[in-house]
Amino acid sequence: MATITPTKATKATPAIAFNLKTATLRTLFEMTRTIADLDAIRALLDWDQQTQMPLGANGVRGEQIATLETVLHAHKAAPALGKAIAKAEAALAAHPERFSDADRALVREARRSHAEATKLPEHFVRDYAVATSVGWEHWQAARTAQDFSLFASDLERIVDLQRQKAQYLDPAAKVPYAVLFDTFEPGMDLATCEQALDQLRQATVPLLKRVQAAQQVDNGFLQGTFPHDQQMALSRRILAIIGYDFDHGRLDLAAHPFMTGLGSPDDDRLTTRVDEHDVVSCQMSVMHECGHAHYELGIDPALKRTILGGGTSSGIHESQSRTWENIIGRSAAFWQGQYHVLQDAFPTPFKQVPLADFVRALNRVEGSLIRVEADELTYNLHIIIRFEIEKDLIAGKIAVRDLPGIWNQKYYDYLGVTPPNDSVGLMQDVHWSAGLFGYFPTYSLGNCYAAQFAATLRQAHPDMDARLAQGETGFIREWQRDTIHRWGSIYQGDDLCRRVTGEGLNPAHLIAYLTEKFTRVYGL
Amino acid sequence: MATITPTKATKATPAIAFNLKTATLRTLFEMTRTIADLDAIRALLDWDQQTQMPLGANGVRGEQIATLETVLHAHKAAPALGKAIAKAEAALAAHPERFSDADRALVREARRSHAEATKLPEHFVRDYAVATSVGWEHWQAARTAQDFSLFASDLERIVDLQRQKAQYLDPAAKVPYAVLFDTFEPGMDLATCEQALDQLRQATVPLLKRVQAAQQVDNGFLQGTFPHDQQMALSRRILAIIGYDFDHGRLDLAAHPFMTGLGSPDDDRLTTRVDEHDVVSCQMSVMHECGHAHYELGIDPALKRTILGGGTSSGIHESQSRTWENIIGRSAAFWQGQYHVLQDAFPTPFKQVPLADFVRALNRVEGSLIRVEADELTYNLHIIIRFEIEKDLIAGKIAVRDLPGIWNQKYYDYLGVTPPNDSVGLMQDVHWSAGLFGYFPTYSLGNCYAAQFAATLRQAHPDMDARLAQGETGFIREWQRDTIHRWGSIYQGDDLCRRVTGEGLNPAHLIAYLTEKFTRVYGL
Repeated sequence: MATITPTKATKATPAIAFNLKTATLRTLFEMTRTIADLDAIRALLDWDQQTQMPLGANGVRGEQIATLETVLHAHKAAPALGKAIAKAEAALAAHPERFSDADRALVREARRSHAEATKLPEHFVRDYAVATSVGWEHWQAARTAQDFSLFASDLERIVDLQRQKAQYLDPAAKVPYAVLFDTFEPGMDLATCEQALDQLRQATVPLLKRVQAAQQVDNGFLQGTFPHDQQMALSRRILAIIGYDFDHGRLDLAAHPFMTGLGSPDDDRLTTRVDEHDVVSCQMSVMHECGHAHYELGIDPALKRTILGGGTSSGIHESQSRTWENIIGRSAAFWQGQYHVLQDAFPTPFKQVPLADFVRALNRVEGSLIRVEADELTYNLHIIIRFEIEKDLIAGKIAVRDLPGIWNQKYYDYLGVTPPNDSVGLMQDVHWSAGLFGYFPTYSLGNCYAAQFAATLRQAHPDMDARLAQGETGFIREWQRDTIHRWGSIYQGDDLCRRVTGEGLNPAHLIAYLTEKFTRVYGL
Repeated sequence: MATITPTKATKATPAIAFNLKTATLRTLFEMTRTIADLDAIRALLDWDQQTQMPLGANGVRGEQIATLETVLHAHKAAPALGKAIAKAEAALAAHPERFSDADRALVREARRSHAEATKLPEHFVRDYAVATSVGWEHWQAARTAQDFSLFASDLERIVDLQRQKAQYLDPAAKVPYAVLFDTFEPGMDLATCEQALDQLRQATVPLLKRVQAAQQVDNGFLQGTFPHDQQMALSRRILAIIGYDFDHGRLDLAAHPFMTGLGSPDDDRLTTRVDEHDVVSCQMSVMHECGHAHYELGIDPALKRTILGGGTSSGIHESQSRTWENIIGRSAAFWQGQYHVLQDAFPTPFKQVPLADFVRALNRVEGSLIRVEADELTYNLHIIIRFEIEKDLIAGKIAVRDLPGIWNQKYYDYLGVTPPNDSVGLMQDVHWSAGLFGYFPTYSLGNCYAAQFAATLRQAHPDMDARLAQGETGFIREWQRDTIHRWGSIYQGDDLCRRVTGEGLNPAHLIAYLTEKFTRVYGL
């Protein structure tokens, strides 16, 4: 029997509850509960591997993960689940008034998961696993050797499998790439996304040229020697300041920072890494991951241990991390309230650096080669380059062997830089080797949504900057929780955006934000 | 398809391999492989909860564990598994010569696990889970309140359920307790165990009286102030000395020390706790848990990810931990080789304490109330008391309400002490509240096996003490691996003992060891 804890409803936050008015829907609820729990357990195997596990256990852990995935797949693809979904769909169609939004979303997400698990034939899943596993190894070797030819034929195979995947998932689809994109950003129309990123490119490229023509901002004082333990202590202090609850999470070291939900909203853990020569990258990364954690920790308890108990899409998830990393974490107002924390942690050099200089340094813009090190303005250009290329690859408009030339030309056109080799060019990111096509654009969607949400937040809290400057941050998280976080996956990304901001994806907010900010920072 | 890696066979260590000569046996192998992986994943959920998990996740983790156990139970009880086992049994009976010991053990253990999963009716499993969960809570409350009456009716219920459990598992059993005991020490005859522990009691009680009449050993210098971090550093150093491989494990803190196999022989982790006023309890605990880890890490790779890839019984497992904690860890020879490590870690007081005094202090004997703090001599009396009582309880010879009197009388008769209240008396251990009846005797079986194995080890390595005194320990672990560890669960406990020592359980070895040691320590 399902135990469902509704939250206390107020006018601003109506209760979230499952009604489950039919036996079929109750059965479906229980079946998907098992899937949700197994998904969380799968996440623990991964978290442990990346943070705690002794190295010598890599092999056996890989096998354990494969076993759990097989078990999980059997649950997702179970014919009994398919029947329960079909009956539930019929009940919803016959008596829509009897069911809640949570009920409808439960059936929708069960259908999505079941379809994905049943549509891909077993031989394809096996081929795909082998291709991405071998591809990932060859990508690493090719990157080390700075030789794209060692990875090119793997990438061709992976692109071909992506096309097959799209075909299996939606045989009627006109644009295969749209099918892949939909797995990360369900419900979002690809054309809308294309239009948004195109507008963003058109606004960013000339703005960047103006910035590049202006006097460069000094950030030399951000480099130096900043000991590991002090950086970690500062990270924990900043996390506490922005409301991360260590009773429901922890901070560990990992090769690549990430956040993982092991039982949202009760257990959402962060990782980071420390560069002892750079004082801000760890802090920014921690605020970024905390934005993801705020989302998962803010999900309504009624959605706990259900397939709706996670963030609704990659883009919306990224909007929450970008809000805390950039919109708040690189703002003058936030640092007005918190600069003393940084100064206490590192009196040298920050007792000697005026706050305004520090904030400007945080917002220094530079046409650069590496996406993950990019500033707020150029970041989207890195994404747009990948987005344009992967669409053309899947559509067969360009060939894998021509990628180095295409990549480098776009970097020159949009960012004014040219990679000296493919390892800092088209081989810098893991995504394609892992089969993640359709994922990159969600990073920039995240930036768009972040700015759009921030505009609404500012309407709700016109005194936002003043409160941040006084050291407050809780009111922001509360607003996010009440409007965005608590809904989990009940509403799909763009639908949620409409409910929060009154309009669908609109890149104008991000363009206005970037234009205002960098005009100011660079005195244009 | 199963991937099986045979070890390199030598005369001393014949290869371990599955032959799997029938399709049924191969199917069985794959089915039980899933069970083995899920068991390891279950262990990770528990390890994480006890060492890493934020407190606020306790509730959701409990639910995740329950879900995984349900999934695991479904695999263990699957009718398809039952059919595969029956077919495999028929094939083994028809052509025994075609199959290896590993094949036979695989079928035997699959049958055990399947029988346990199918024989207990669902309503019983639910009642049992509720009774032990509530019982555990009430035991905690009763212990805090020092009031056994708050727990007595729970214990009555649990005892009754134990009888039912025995009845379900073996309706023809004449002694229900023997059925419970068999779940922890499969293949060991209860009468043999009873006889052994009785002999042990008869030898120990008079020896203890002689020790108590002698001049007490001074151990005052073991108390003092020994900072946490230094104790942990010393623990890691000692673990490295006795051959624990941190590439396949780690050491963490936990409320109660334990070892857990998360993928034996590749991932076996330790925990400990630190008392800053006591320098040896952490080190002894670490050596104890490392003995368990040595066992799991020494299992043949051919048994990895199979239901034979763990220790074969509670008693044999305990024998390995007791060997490293007591037979080695409290020996003069070991400390002759390693005392400088302790002296380096804590110059005060150990630069001033002669080695002989330190070793004597490690072996101080005291009739005491608390099992987990007991010395090597009195420890078995604590066990024998519980063994005698739980047998009588299950047999209905004594009533739960009479327990306090019975317990206290036995403590007076065997150990010469009387508990001032039931919290340091019959409520000191968690076992009964958790439904662990039949487990206690395996602790003393572990001590018996440890001494018995040590006698054989000493025959193989007559220079054992001299080598230990020179700082060597690897030869002991190698001997254990080749004779005991590598076999995993292929041979049941007493069968393994026969193969290693040439005879079944024989308490004379432990009696001789204890008599020699304490006669020497106390100059009797």
